[in-house]
Amino acid sequence: MDDRTVLKNTGLRGITVASTKISDVQGTKGKLIYRGYLVQDLAENTSFEEVIHLLLHERLPTSGELSALKDKLAGYRALPAAVIDALKTMPHTALPMDILQSGVSLLAHHDPDIRTVSRDASVEMGLRLIARFPTMLAAWERIRNGKDPIDPDPGLDQAANYLYMRTGEKPDTETARSFDIALVLHAEHSFNASTFSARQVASTRAHMYAAVSAAVGSLSGDLHGGANVRVMEMLLNIGDPDNVEAFVNRILDEGKLIMGLGHAVYKTDDPRAGIISEMSRKIGERIGETKWYEMSKLLEKKGKAAFKDRKGTDIFVNVDFYSASFYYGLGIPVDLFSPIFAISRVAGWAAHVIEEQYAEAAPKPMLYRPESEYVGEYCGPDECSFVAMDER
Amino acid sequence: MDDRTVLKNTGLRGITVASTKISDVQGTKGKLIYRGYLVQDLAENTSFEEVIHLLLHERLPTSGELSALKDKLAGYRALPAAVIDALKTMPHTALPMDILQSGVSLLAHHDPDIRTVSRDASVEMGLRLIARFPTMLAAWERIRNGKDPIDPDPGLDQAANYLYMRTGEKPDTETARSFDIALVLHAEHSFNASTFSARQVASTRAHMYAAVSAAVGSLSGDLHGGANVRVMEMLLNIGDPDNVEAFVNRILDEGKLIMGLGHAVYKTDDPRAGIISEMSRKIGERIGETKWYEMSKLLEKKGKAAFKDRKGTDIFVNVDFYSASFYYGLGIPVDLFSPIFAISRVAGWAAHVIEEQYAEAAPKPMLYRPESEYVGEYCGPDECSFVAMDER
Repeated sequence: MDDRTVLKNTGLRGITVASTKISDVQGTKGKLIYRGYLVQDLAENTSFEEVIHLLLHERLPTSGELSALKDKLAGYRALPAAVIDALKTMPHTALPMDILQSGVSLLAHHDPDIRTVSRDASVEMGLRLIARFPTMLAAWERIRNGKDPIDPDPGLDQAANYLYMRTGEKPDTETARSFDIALVLHAEHSFNASTFSARQVASTRAHMYAAVSAAVGSLSGDLHGGANVRVMEMLLNIGDPDNVEAFVNRILDEGKLIMGLGHAVYKTDDPRAGIISEMSRKIGERIGETKWYEMSKLLEKKGKAAFKDRKGTDIFVNVDFYSASFYYGLGIPVDLFSPIFAISRVAGWAAHVIEEQYAEAAPKPMLYRPESEYVGEYCGPDECSFVAMDER
Repeated sequence: MDDRTVLKNTGLRGITVASTKISDVQGTKGKLIYRGYLVQDLAENTSFEEVIHLLLHERLPTSGELSALKDKLAGYRALPAAVIDALKTMPHTALPMDILQSGVSLLAHHDPDIRTVSRDASVEMGLRLIARFPTMLAAWERIRNGKDPIDPDPGLDQAANYLYMRTGEKPDTETARSFDIALVLHAEHSFNASTFSARQVASTRAHMYAAVSAAVGSLSGDLHGGANVRVMEMLLNIGDPDNVEAFVNRILDEGKLIMGLGHAVYKTDDPRAGIISEMSRKIGERIGETKWYEMSKLLEKKGKAAFKDRKGTDIFVNVDFYSASFYYGLGIPVDLFSPIFAISRVAGWAAHVIEEQYAEAAPKPMLYRPESEYVGEYCGPDECSFVAMDER
């Protein structure tokens, strides 16, 4: 079968495995579309809560619907006491993505709908997870620093609440809104690795929590959610804008990649990158430390030029490139950058799990059960004869 | 692109996505081969520990290697005290697969190798998980029944230890060996859904625990690990061998399937089914309750005949068909059947994660990142104009 040659060990790259109504990534045009709307338009005009409604309820909310959704999220936001107790048993040295993965499956034990198989129950489970990701992450950051978690404030939305629960100080409007925009921009990106994991687990008819826990595991990988961490580590390593040019030349001499430049899908600048670049600039100005933004800007310019010069082709910034300096400007510890990604992307995961479980149109999704080609041991044309222990 | 039509929404059925040296499933011949050896030969001649060595170290152990492996597993078997404490915070009503998934990621926090990226570290993490799955499951069963967990006995192997830690009574040799064979038979089955989940998560360079946690989530689905549960529920529902014939006719009249008959891959009897059938018969005789075995045997006979009669094609028993009555005969609660599957399959998952992370031969595995086709909302030829809230 020809497909064997085409597909084997290529990570399904370029292969369309399913249809979806959730988002469209047009790599050559540099467009990212959530249920019909350009992500730029959403970033400019909507809050993360509106995007949650769009992704899970399939359309932008009316004012009444938005208000009802905000009330529901506020009601779901606090963690069960037993989950906070469990978080307190965890070693402070644990990897934050592992904490988040544990937390998701701990929350499953307390969900009243966990045994209910219906679209409505799945939506509620998704909303509970979306509501609680920021609470859990903020609680963990405080617990590992020896502090008590701070209860969510029902008057604040997802973005402002997270910043508030980290520190106990309510963020100013502009800071809160910029983080809100970051959540809008990271919420959804079709069949990326973690979303594919979530859908794959959901295809066995596992519940929302099992699927989202798998997605968190997938996002924890260096090649996926770890990318913004590695951008920041690179910036910290460069240390000063004066070192950028030498750094670029050294990396390219060594045949390596500049973190945050290049993307599997986009063949132009990532549509989210320009927006986050501006947010990075502004947060730098607000906190009086513009170095990381400036270094990023210079690195983009020098990196693109050097790449073009050496390879003869263009390379483009991706979403991780400026989100690193933006999160750093917000004061978020570098090892929490991937979990920060997760508190937004969980909205996309939930939408995909619901679509995988309850897509109404034919053809419905099927259990993902691919084949592999055995290239291992054989003895002659077929299996080996068993070898007794004293003859091994 | 033609592939779109071929692949979309077909769950990658029949599509070879990767090469593997771990196992071969020859569906038409009814052969299952672990690294060159027929599973029947392994079931007859080896212990689960030998199979663990075969899967993770790529060959059957010498006597000295087996002894070293057994010592290592015995050393790893006890749970960290903090994990037992965390288990005690969990509601007794939680779904056992959710407990297992939480437990895997809780164990990650305590693994000394969690930040180490090397094949050796990955093997050790795999062995720790294999060693601790039975401990965790036995501890949970006792905790939810209000009892204290029982420490593992270093003198017992994986199979006997699990049965011992459930009840505090050491199993007789024949019972322990039959459970040991069940572990051998369920250890590995190429790219089934949970293994594919584990590999997919590992392809992002996530660690062993993140990948295995995802696999547990995948196995929790009704279409995967839930199958042996549904076989047992069917047997309990039939209630008596006298009701089998009427049951078969009713199910087929309703156009439904008989649980445990039919398999995605095998086009003949599952090579494991006959072995487990014998084990089911013997455990029934040992405990003096042969009803469930007899009912299964009759259901196989009547079900196959009725299927052939109505559809004109043959249908075959799969591994879940007789493992249900076997586990039931061992006294294991029905809702623990999927976790029991996991304490064996974790060996296969670990081997696949290591292969995904450290395959030496080209072509190396790549991050799984498929594409999807957007079939959702559009407004004219492209994206929709944003609609302000008061115009929605």
